[in-house]
Amino acid sequence: MSGLIRIATAECFTHGKIAREIHAFSQGYPLSYKWTINPKNYKLSLIAGLFIPTISGIKKILKFEPLPPTEVIDDIKVYDETADKKMAKKMAMAIKDITGADVGIGTTAGVGRGGIAVISDEIEAIGSSDVYADLRSSPATEIMKRQQSGVEKALKLLEDTLPSII
Amino acid sequence: MSGLIRIATAECFTHGKIAREIHAFSQGYPLSYKWTINPKNYKLSLIAGLFIPTISGIKKILKFEPLPPTEVIDDIKVYDETADKKMAKKMAMAIKDITGADVGIGTTAGVGRGGIAVISDEIEAIGSSDVYADLRSSPATEIMKRQQSGVEKALKLLEDTLPSII
Repeated sequence: MSGLIRIATAECFTHGKIAREIHAFSQGYPLSYKWTINPKNYKLSLIAGLFIPTISGIKKILKFEPLPPTEVIDDIKVYDETADKKMAKKMAMAIKDITGADVGIGTTAGVGRGGIAVISDEIEAIGSSDVYADLRSSPATEIMKRQQSGVEKALKLLEDTLPSII
Repeated sequence: MSGLIRIATAECFTHGKIAREIHAFSQGYPLSYKWTINPKNYKLSLIAGLFIPTISGIKKILKFEPLPPTEVIDDIKVYDETADKKMAKKMAMAIKDITGADVGIGTTAGVGRGGIAVISDEIEAIGSSDVYADLRSSPATEIMKRQQSGVEKALKLLEDTLPSII
């Protein structure tokens, strides 16, 4: 493949911030993430960035049956880290399929460091943030730290993936 | 209706920020918007917040045929203000239908102040931001000012709409 790389995200704990960073980079005004790739070498397009915190949103928009959560609080799903990784992969694959993107990105985090998935036809990269938190009990500051780490880790995984796509 | 008010957004120029403000408010840690409603009186749930800057994203995810844009730049649609208002309404209705939300919110802005729509079964509120900009030629600072105004106007429209929903 060459030319425009089309990306779509389905995000939970990163609140659509991965999508916003990619879109801003593609439009020539990068936000807070320090990209290491050269925009002249990589022309990206964000098809869509979906923030989906709820079980019903997953079902209705991504159209798959979510893994059974450990807990559900006001329709918001809570998984452990192992299940978060599986769910992130499912979310990445679903949004990639629905939009016909070259790369799908999925994120979700309940109890633990969360799950991050970057999926293309060539590569499947699964990871976590560097910050442990518990959606049910951690203070907002910890949840925000995990989010920030998750956004950075996802974009790093994306950057690592791009050379194999072009 | 009483109890939980379920909201979903399909956003373009507001980049999913309306959704993030609603979700944060609903979780008890409001971000930058100064809400005037009392969280004890209004229990909100954000089902999903979709940032969709592209024509193909609209077609694939919201599943309707967009109005013909004035211009398309790398799959990103550009409308004038009249068409933006019509498109914002279509986006709000589509995401409301897909998710089964009580309230759907749509936003898009090309040339002009943009279009904002807040749709429930009871009310249809259509507005614009307070800032003129041209997606094709305005500096990023102006585009950001329009975005900020758009987020605030949309949340104000939502607050005005809520009493008729409960």
